[in-house]
Order: sequence, then C-alpha cells, then structure tokens
Amino acid sequence: MSSDAPVWIGVDVGGTKVLAAVVDGSRIVRTAHRDTPGRRVDVRMVEDALADAVATVAGGAPIAGVGVAAAGFVDAEGERVVFAPHLPWRGERVRARLAERFGAPVVLDNDANCHAAAEAAFGAARGAEVAVMVTLGTGIGGALVVSGRLVRGRQGLAGEFGHMQVVPGGQSCPCGLRGCWEQYCSGNALVRYVRDRFGDEPTLLSGWCEGDPARVTGPMVTEAAELGDPVAQAAFSYVGTWLGVGAANLVAAIDPDAIVIGGGVSAAGDRLLGPARRALAGHLVAAEDREPAPLLSAQLGPAAGVIGAAALARGGR
Amino acid sequence: MSSDAPVWIGVDVGGTKVLAAVVDGSRIVRTAHRDTPGRRVDVRMVEDALADAVATVAGGAPIAGVGVAAAGFVDAEGERVVFAPHLPWRGERVRARLAERFGAPVVLDNDANCHAAAEAAFGAARGAEVAVMVTLGTGIGGALVVSGRLVRGRQGLAGEFGHMQVVPGGQSCPCGLRGCWEQYCSGNALVRYVRDRFGDEPTLLSGWCEGDPARVTGPMVTEAAELGDPVAQAAFSYVGTWLGVGAANLVAAIDPDAIVIGGGVSAAGDRLLGPARRALAGHLVAAEDREPAPLLSAQLGPAAGVIGAAALARGGR
Repeated sequence: MSSDAPVWIGVDVGGTKVLAAVVDGSRIVRTAHRDTPGRRVDVRMVEDALADAVATVAGGAPIAGVGVAAAGFVDAEGERVVFAPHLPWRGERVRARLAERFGAPVVLDNDANCHAAAEAAFGAARGAEVAVMVTLGTGIGGALVVSGRLVRGRQGLAGEFGHMQVVPGGQSCPCGLRGCWEQYCSGNALVRYVRDRFGDEPTLLSGWCEGDPARVTGPMVTEAAELGDPVAQAAFSYVGTWLGVGAANLVAAIDPDAIVIGGGVSAAGDRLLGPARRALAGHLVAAEDREPAPLLSAQLGPAAGVIGAAALARGGR
Repeated sequence: MSSDAPVWIGVDVGGTKVLAAVVDGSRIVRTAHRDTPGRRVDVRMVEDALADAVATVAGGAPIAGVGVAAAGFVDAEGERVVFAPHLPWRGERVRARLAERFGAPVVLDNDANCHAAAEAAFGAARGAEVAVMVTLGTGIGGALVVSGRLVRGRQGLAGEFGHMQVVPGGQSCPCGLRGCWEQYCSGNALVRYVRDRFGDEPTLLSGWCEGDPARVTGPMVTEAAELGDPVAQAAFSYVGTWLGVGAANLVAAIDPDAIVIGGGVSAAGDRLLGPARRALAGHLVAAEDREPAPLLSAQLGPAAGVIGAAALARGGR
C-alpha cells in the first residue's frame, strides 16, 4: 500500500487501552496502541489519545474514514456516547467532534456491535440472515444482526442480553437489577464460582492466590482448568450451562441462523461450548422439529473491534 | 366494490374456527365462518372448509390473492405447516396446494406473525422501526418486526417468546420444558392462579363454578375481576407483573420502539397493563438513561389475523 492511498482506520476504545489499526477488509495492516487515560479525566484526554493513535497508524496517508468502537452505550444515531463505565464520556457528541478533528468521515458504535459487524462480514456469522453475537468478558456484550445490518433498537440499547433476568430475585447485578444473565455467565461469574468454593474444595487456585479468593482472576481460572483443576473445570461447566440456557432463550425469541460466542472467556473453547451446547439442546422449544441453532466460536479474536469499526466506516452503519 | 374487482382475502385458521374475509387495507368488507373440522381428521377436510369459506366470501369476484394465517408452526419459507397442535397439518406443503386450488397467489404464515403484520401496517406498531408483538391467549404468541418486515428466523420459529425460561426448574410446560414465560403470563396462568386459591380465599368464581376449580375459564376471571373479585384481580396483577418482567427481557435483548400486547387476555386493558408497566419499569436495564419502551394495546382486535394475512398476500412476506 503506498503512503498516498487513503486508508480505513478502526479504533477500539476500551477501559484500559486504545487500539487503532489500518484495516483492509479483515486484514490488520498496522496498529498503534495508547493507554486509556481513565474515566475521571477530561474527555479531551481520551480524545487526544485516540487522535494520537489514529495519526500514528495513518502515518501521513490520507484517511478515507474512521470507525470508532467504544466500550459504552452509544445512542441509536451513532452520535453520542451516552455512558461508558470506564471512560469519561457522558452524552458527548463524540462522532462529530472526531470527524472535525480528523477531517474525515467518522462512524461511532459500541464495541459489541463492532465485534458483531466484523463476525458478520468476515467471520463466524458470515452469510447468516439473522445472527446473535454474545461477547463474554467481565460481563456480557451482545448484538443482533438481521439481513446484514445491526439492529440497534429504540435507543441504541438492543443486544443487552446480559441483563435479561434468568433467576427471579437472583444475584445482584451492578446494573441495579437482580438475576441478570451475566451474573451467571461471564468472567465475573467464573471467578465468583471459584471464590465461593475457596477453602471448601482443594484447588490449584488457592495456592496461586495464597488462599486469598479476592486475587482470583478469569485468566487464572482458564489456566487452572487446562491443568485439570476440578474446581476451575466445574466453573466452566457452570458458566457454560448458563450460556446454553440463555442461548436457548435467544433461540426462542429470535431463532437466529448463528449464535457467535466471543470475548475472553470464550478462549476456553469446548470447555465452555460443550456444556453450553448440551444445555441449549436441553432447553430448546420444539426441539424435535428443528436443528439446534449452532453455537459458534468467534473467528476474529481481539481485533474484531477494529475490523468491525472499520467495516462500519466503509460500509455505513 | 363491483363483483368484477379482484379481491384480497385473508383467512385465519384456528383450532375451532376458520374465518375468511375480503379485506381492503385494514377494513373488513365481508366475512365467512366455518367450524374447524379438528385435528384428527384428514387434512383434506380442513382444506375443504378453508376453500369453502374463501369461495363464499369471494362471492364470484376474481381473487387477487389469499393470505392464510395458521395457528401453528410455519416454516421459514412459508411453504409448509410444520406442526399445529389443533390442526391435522404435519409438514404438508399447504401454500402450494391452496394456490393451485384457488388459481391465485397464496401466502402462508403463522397467526402471531399475521397479527403483527396487521398491527405494524395499520395498528399500534405503525411507524415502529423495531416492534415486538406479544399475543396473550391460552399461551403466548409472538412476533418480531424490523424495518417493516417480519423476522422469521432460521426455521420460522422466531417470536416464540412464551418459551423463554423465566424460572429455572419452574412450572412444567406442555412443550416439555420448565419455567417457560407462558406458564406465568397467559390465559392458562390466569386460570391456574385462581384454581390454586380455590377454597382458600373467598371468590365469586367459586359460586359460579359450584366449587369446581376445573370449570374456571379465562373469560370468567376477566368478568369476576371487573366485578371487583379480589382473587380475580390478584390473578391479573400476577399475570401483568410477569408480562412486565418478560417485556423487560425483550427490551434488554431487542430495545424495540413498541411492544404491542394483543390476544384475549389483553381485553382486561389497564388491569393487565398497569402492573405490567410497573414491572417493566422496575426491571429495565439502564432505566435512568432511557425512556421505557411503551407497552401498547393491540388496536385491531380479533380481526388482526385476517387483516395481516391479507396484507402479507398483498405486500409479500
């Protein structure tokens, strides 16, 4: 690619890191990282970090367009970041501000929608008329794609699958509700499962954390499960089963062609998806008259955010 | 309308009755009824009743097209009735057979989709980019409309909201699963609520049914509630609250512009929708950053099936 050819850029603005990439279809041409300044700073600092990463990755090439994936609620029009738990934006018109700054078209969406856009265009959901994306990180991110377009809903909040109530009066959720799906099916749920058993059942994690349950992390549970630790494996079985139960609810409501599972927790692969597929089959309405909808692993990994953001910039939201 | 003008016909094939109507937009021009022959008869008998009702209502006018709303699972292509609990069709290619019989284009869909098509085109969901329809009868029928089109899903089974699990290990459902939403929110749930309290709490219904809880019906509960019966009123409060909880799950997942509530149970109006709106507001994620999605009463009543079927015949599925 010559330095004169206009480039499409995707930027993923997460709670700890800003990742910018020149993207060609599903191919990452080059990347630049910045630390996210945090959520208690002036919004200008986040936008400076973002602009700096974009300028660096563009390397002087003209910018055809920029797609921004933000870890937060984005309004239905793609103009504002309404709220972001780990970023300072609170209703700012981020899209217009960045477009002016870059002198190029900017498209803004939430990170789960960008992941889904990438998987729908280039990954596991390619060719699906109706696709559901479930991103398992600390909580659950989600998105719904119909006929190749993201369904954003009335206020851009479609796909908040993690806050569907699955247990009446169940676990408290930071969102203020109880029994939300992500309290049973997420990185946090994985960690809580292990912490609740600390001291009761022998586990590698107890040694790794010097007996302090507060030190358990999701990646540690993944590693312990790989080493055969029964408590860690049971945690994946628990979270996987709840993944299947919640997926069955999405199948009942939407009957998608594909359910794509991404995010950090999904790195466990069949350790998670095996129990999930069994629970899905066991909770499926009209099971005898249908093929179970496939639960698929996301294909594009952590770069899905920038790939999807660039695809939305190129193809239009 | 002269007898020479081609007519659009909608047919609603339910468990007890076949209703055919000449439809002009949302207006019923004339109707014809037949009894449904039942589910243990030859499929030919149902199709004869259907064809007889259509011929009667057409009254010799040429038929522009026929839309058929069937109380059962229709495949994603609109060709077959896969299964219908109260009708003999089991996988038959109903659409093509009827098209040949009428010498006119036929469109086939399930009744909940036809209700939603009618409400989207002419009723409470008009103008909604994303609409959810919840039809409360014996169980729950449902449909999802995006950008004016029905979302049918992989196997035509989208909108089976009633079989989303809302209580783990909860009430048994005839579908074979447990804790399905329609076990808590439907005409059957209303009746069960009252039956479970028979003999424990004084209620008009006990006198009406001579103490036999098996004789309680949904319409009786509606009437008793109107007369101030506390048990019947509590039953609506219970079902309405579960309506709101389930609606909140649909809002989390889909963030629709409108949720339209139809079906026989919805005749209770605010007695049902009042508790439903309160429960929806109390179970809404990000409630402080959004307006609650409106829970609206369906506007087209029992004719919605034939109106929607005719609209689909005219506009294409």
